[in-house]
Amino acid sequence: MYDIILKKRNGGALTRQEIQFWVNGFVQDTIPDYQVAALLMAVFFQGLTPQETVYLTEAMIDSGEKLDLTHLPGTKADKHSTGGVGDKTTLVLAPLVASAGITMAKMSGRGLGHTGGTLDKLESIPGFHTDLSPEQFIGNVKNIGISVVGQTSNLVPADKKIYALRDVSATVDSVPLIAASVMSKKLAAGADVIVLDVKCGSGAFMKTPAQAEHLARMMVNIGRNMGKKVAAVISNMEQPLGYAVGNALEVKEAIHVLQGKGPKDIREICLYLAGEIFLLAGKVDNIHQGKTMAGELLDQGLALRKFREFVQAQGSNGGVVDDDKLLPEAKYRFSLVSEQDGFITKMETEAIGRAAMILGAGREKMGDLVDPGVGIVFYKKMGDWVNKGDTLAMIHANEEDKADKAKNILAQSIFLDKEQKQGDALIYGVITS
Amino acid sequence: MYDIILKKRNGGALTRQEIQFWVNGFVQDTIPDYQVAALLMAVFFQGLTPQETVYLTEAMIDSGEKLDLTHLPGTKADKHSTGGVGDKTTLVLAPLVASAGITMAKMSGRGLGHTGGTLDKLESIPGFHTDLSPEQFIGNVKNIGISVVGQTSNLVPADKKIYALRDVSATVDSVPLIAASVMSKKLAAGADVIVLDVKCGSGAFMKTPAQAEHLARMMVNIGRNMGKKVAAVISNMEQPLGYAVGNALEVKEAIHVLQGKGPKDIREICLYLAGEIFLLAGKVDNIHQGKTMAGELLDQGLALRKFREFVQAQGSNGGVVDDDKLLPEAKYRFSLVSEQDGFITKMETEAIGRAAMILGAGREKMGDLVDPGVGIVFYKKMGDWVNKGDTLAMIHANEEDKADKAKNILAQSIFLDKEQKQGDALIYGVITS
Repeated sequence: MYDIILKKRNGGALTRQEIQFWVNGFVQDTIPDYQVAALLMAVFFQGLTPQETVYLTEAMIDSGEKLDLTHLPGTKADKHSTGGVGDKTTLVLAPLVASAGITMAKMSGRGLGHTGGTLDKLESIPGFHTDLSPEQFIGNVKNIGISVVGQTSNLVPADKKIYALRDVSATVDSVPLIAASVMSKKLAAGADVIVLDVKCGSGAFMKTPAQAEHLARMMVNIGRNMGKKVAAVISNMEQPLGYAVGNALEVKEAIHVLQGKGPKDIREICLYLAGEIFLLAGKVDNIHQGKTMAGELLDQGLALRKFREFVQAQGSNGGVVDDDKLLPEAKYRFSLVSEQDGFITKMETEAIGRAAMILGAGREKMGDLVDPGVGIVFYKKMGDWVNKGDTLAMIHANEEDKADKAKNILAQSIFLDKEQKQGDALIYGVITS
Repeated sequence: MYDIILKKRNGGALTRQEIQFWVNGFVQDTIPDYQVAALLMAVFFQGLTPQETVYLTEAMIDSGEKLDLTHLPGTKADKHSTGGVGDKTTLVLAPLVASAGITMAKMSGRGLGHTGGTLDKLESIPGFHTDLSPEQFIGNVKNIGISVVGQTSNLVPADKKIYALRDVSATVDSVPLIAASVMSKKLAAGADVIVLDVKCGSGAFMKTPAQAEHLARMMVNIGRNMGKKVAAVISNMEQPLGYAVGNALEVKEAIHVLQGKGPKDIREICLYLAGEIFLLAGKVDNIHQGKTMAGELLDQGLALRKFREFVQAQGSNGGVVDDDKLLPEAKYRFSLVSEQDGFITKMETEAIGRAAMILGAGREKMGDLVDPGVGIVFYKKMGDWVNKGDTLAMIHANEEDKADKAKNILAQSIFLDKEQKQGDALIYGVITS
């Protein structure tokens, strides 16, 4: 192990054998965590070559069990987002893709910080369960082509162990380590087609399009090397996606999109991601056709119908599809009022995520409970004109003191100016294998 | 601790409080070794400022007890070598300096690899003890102005713990960490005047004069900040110092130098180091005077007389001073014969050290026993003309198979050429506060 650390520290490229050696040794506790921590810091500084990143992903996958979906008919697709504020894309995309006859057998995470992960959002639907047995999961996938469950503990145990060490050793934000972590979980979950939504901006992990592109290329390269069809869409996270931030609030907004309504930006990114899946699955010849097909599935109500089947199959009665008042609501609403006139020119999206977390929509640490009803609904977004006295956002809270804290953060996170500023496009581009 | 790792990883300078926090936390086991390993690797890449290095040295010293020599009269001097092959300087320098009335109360290490440390060399003298009680140590220093003992376990415990972690995490060769490690031990040992011998070349840790100068400046800066008088001599280690490599063989050579004879290079560096001590102690006005004074002490036999008092005070009968046949000798001698004519143009000094270690002169791992009689005596050194069939070196061994291995290494470590090559000077320069 010493020689491996030294080699990486000095900028050398590790072999497949060397990478298997340290990953297996760490998982089996024959290599101590302090040596792995030193190696991870050396990787932070020296990076990994694309080939090393592939070897690392392979070794991580091999540390546990893999989900075998080969016995299921047709294309099996999966989607991953690097995480953003107000990102309810999966809630729309999964039934949309499944309504085209493509299987979505998806394992999702809960996530830390900001708002909850996809599991937390789904669990805000009364009766919805994400803790299905493997038999139930595969059964649902066979019957209706869609299921979303929590990750099983024996899927990529190496990732859990390495991530926990990165988290305490300041080595989380290393692009090749992020790429191997994401891709090991996606590849172990058995899909043929994988679409990645790499978020970029003030509310995302990657702050610039160049960083996002670097991560996207790394992940697409790993997938290609493993014989999968992968596309990475690089999308804008300089403001929350849609208007709602918070678990049940986001489900409500997602249902609006499934009804052919809802905010344009969510619809646009869902059409793009679904279009890429249709393209990779060979259902269409180009992304334009793919987006058109996705739009029709939404507008004809097929995606919504699939969503209803989906929530019913996981324990809910499906009533929320017709009446979103059945979703949990917070006790109090407080409006954030603008103290000046102007165009919104900037939204500090990470701070907005923190405000939502303080309300209880997200977790500060593993094991924290998430409050499904709380969150923030924006009335205005970037480029919008605001008059003094207009409501900028509505805070949904169950505790007044938390609402005050969130309001203070929000008040400092939205910037106005007399001159309108042209924001970046929602989609920066796509990297495909 | 996370924030400290992140700050250093991102190139920030740590405050005194932050450095105290992690050093104390690590020593007291409240900060886990994996976080310290990550920090050490970040330090390897980002370095430490001179000010941070001073703070680190301070924090390390404060982790244990300090030796208080203030009640002893006159100047207290100490010397440290960064380590080389055939480096018996301390054996000559310590009695030489003490013979000028300057106190040498020295704590020494055993060292790994190559040949043994100063303690191992001294212990090859029959009867010599280095495990004196604190009372005996101070008593000897009071009576005759010189004593050399092993480091006590409560002197800079932080260094022991940090070094052990560096050793397994590939973070040994970081200049600021080396500087803090060396200086913490020297400063805790209580001397007013410290002379450092920074070795440079194929047989040393620092391979180039620029690296050696960087380390020298760091160490001198630390000493000055702690109110000590410090000079660092940068010296050539492109070939072994003197002709002998091995514990008793080196003692024998050191005695020859103390007798006013012996190899010129050892005499030269000892005069230089002693001269610097005399200069820092205010005994002379310039280095030329210092070297002259040191030469007289050698030539008048005063240094040899002090050496005799020294070995008698630590348990030997002092007979070796007059009869070096009393030193332990190896059973076998094997000569390495040259297979060609030419000038010696290069000696792979690190490999020579390894050959000596294989014979048993040094330790491969902590706790190994050292064989006092074995080693190598060179007959020729760089710049010398060699005829085919001439003896290049004599191998002193107690086991024939080890002698064979050492001989093979040596045969590949000495390079001949028809053209004589001018080697570098023995002393590259001196950095002083």
